[in-house]
Amino acid sequence: MAQTTDSLAQRLLDGDRRALARAITLVESDDPAGWELVREVYPKTGQATIVGLTGAPGAGKSTLIGALTKLRREQERQVAVLSIDPSSPFTQGALLGDRIRLTDHFLDPGVFIRSMANRGALGGLSEAALQAALLMDAAGRDDVFLETVGVGQAEVDIIDHADTVVLVLMPGSGDSIQALKAGVMEIPDIIVVNKADHPLTETMVREVRAVLSLAPHGGWRVPIVKTEASRGKGVPELVERLDEHRAHIEQEGTLSERRRRNLRSEVLGICTFRMRAALEEQLAQDEEFQRLLDEVVARRLDPASAATQILRRVDPAQAEPGAGD
Amino acid sequence: MAQTTDSLAQRLLDGDRRALARAITLVESDDPAGWELVREVYPKTGQATIVGLTGAPGAGKSTLIGALTKLRREQERQVAVLSIDPSSPFTQGALLGDRIRLTDHFLDPGVFIRSMANRGALGGLSEAALQAALLMDAAGRDDVFLETVGVGQAEVDIIDHADTVVLVLMPGSGDSIQALKAGVMEIPDIIVVNKADHPLTETMVREVRAVLSLAPHGGWRVPIVKTEASRGKGVPELVERLDEHRAHIEQEGTLSERRRRNLRSEVLGICTFRMRAALEEQLAQDEEFQRLLDEVVARRLDPASAATQILRRVDPAQAEPGAGD
Repeated sequence: MAQTTDSLAQRLLDGDRRALARAITLVESDDPAGWELVREVYPKTGQATIVGLTGAPGAGKSTLIGALTKLRREQERQVAVLSIDPSSPFTQGALLGDRIRLTDHFLDPGVFIRSMANRGALGGLSEAALQAALLMDAAGRDDVFLETVGVGQAEVDIIDHADTVVLVLMPGSGDSIQALKAGVMEIPDIIVVNKADHPLTETMVREVRAVLSLAPHGGWRVPIVKTEASRGKGVPELVERLDEHRAHIEQEGTLSERRRRNLRSEVLGICTFRMRAALEEQLAQDEEFQRLLDEVVARRLDPASAATQILRRVDPAQAEPGAGD
Repeated sequence: MAQTTDSLAQRLLDGDRRALARAITLVESDDPAGWELVREVYPKTGQATIVGLTGAPGAGKSTLIGALTKLRREQERQVAVLSIDPSSPFTQGALLGDRIRLTDHFLDPGVFIRSMANRGALGGLSEAALQAALLMDAAGRDDVFLETVGVGQAEVDIIDHADTVVLVLMPGSGDSIQALKAGVMEIPDIIVVNKADHPLTETMVREVRAVLSLAPHGGWRVPIVKTEASRGKGVPELVERLDEHRAHIEQEGTLSERRRRNLRSEVLGICTFRMRAALEEQLAQDEEFQRLLDEVVARRLDPASAATQILRRVDPAQAEPGAGD
């Protein structure tokens, strides 16, 4: 197997698309060979520009990424897209219709597109997403676009892998701007108001400006870019802003700061995910756990005390802060 | 201290509002006395009807809860509201304006209102939110309303404490319905289209109906209720649907199934949170961790291998699934 992995790593580093696809599948299916591969190619990473695009479903993120990809290809840059696809038992694949513009690039060898599904194991998904982004980076892609939906913590964890975070809004759809206003969502580096042919565009721009005026500056003035991604309008300006932000964080040293912070939380996230997985595995064969759970359901034992007892059983070394004795 | 806790528990069980407020503060600040208190009163819980309301900021959840509270009070039921408040360094408290209708009830001793802030420690927040809901239950509140924003995993964890989940939408704001369509959001038990005087109300109802037609049934037909919460319109119908759903899950035995599943994930969530906290504590004083992190930043050691080394250092008993050696 080491043989196979070695040559896969070499082909990946040479930029072979099939090797990249195969490598991501290994990582996604939690195959040990995938982890080994990432370890092997990790020293070659850190070169790609990782841009995260987030926003509500329907805001036009995929179309925008399609338009960005077109411009980046004109600059002869290699592009990879990692789309974190929501899915559920009954809508799996339902979003594919939105990907039309992105599929324009399906035949271009300079563009690599991959979807990852959210199958409930979110800790694991965030972990797998970073590994996939690292593989894309190692394969020599100049630009890696990460696409996520939603404003929750799990989505934030994924988008945190990015060097530059772009929030995509659309006029007349208030949820995201409300989330921004309420502080549910962190202030991104760049805000795009897409579908800017909509009559409510200027209203939304004003609202965004008002929210930003309350935000801390930190040396970077968050630009608001109006785009009509489906016609490519405003996209060259967005590319300029992306390059400016990149230059800014490189100059200020915040790129390495940001990467250190993200890598720290990534390492801890992997640790937490593995501890939880190990715990679940131990408990699956543990009749005492079922008995404790019965006690909790019967209201004879409270959840926190049950947790204390479980942590003592499975691993006496783990402390339980805040639990009375 | 045992003396103090004992009498606090007794006053809480007697329904004393100040005791309840004090108890929640103990839990929120992770005071061991808070955990002890929950343990003591836990056998008295399980009586309250716990209703979770979720939806984007601005959809009118607080107003709706205010209107629901009014009706429940007319039925002489005791009400508690737990609002999971988003906050950020620069918008803290900015949402208070939305709470106007809820504050109508501030002087009614039959209504207990409490906000909890999301201060980044989301695992801990979900944990604290359940503990607070249990305390409200033990204090004899007949109805506990849990309010959260957002559609992410962390918010789902909180709303999972509820027996009945209500999604609040507003017409003309497409994000939530898109999230539902995309399967980012689980199908709730009841859908409310609030602000139903809006011209786009029927469009939204049709869209919701189309999404629901794709959803699995499971014996319960998800009702769509149109409300104008600010005028109390449609709220009696919502109360009827809430009662119907309650009767349905009691009859079908799904209430106890649901509670068992939720309590299981709660116990595991508390375990995970404590393991992570214990890990962070150990690493805070660990120079080797800083050195490992430096290696990761310098791209000499990949994040997953760093995690493997850390888990071996801090706790050799923990397995690391999927990590090559």
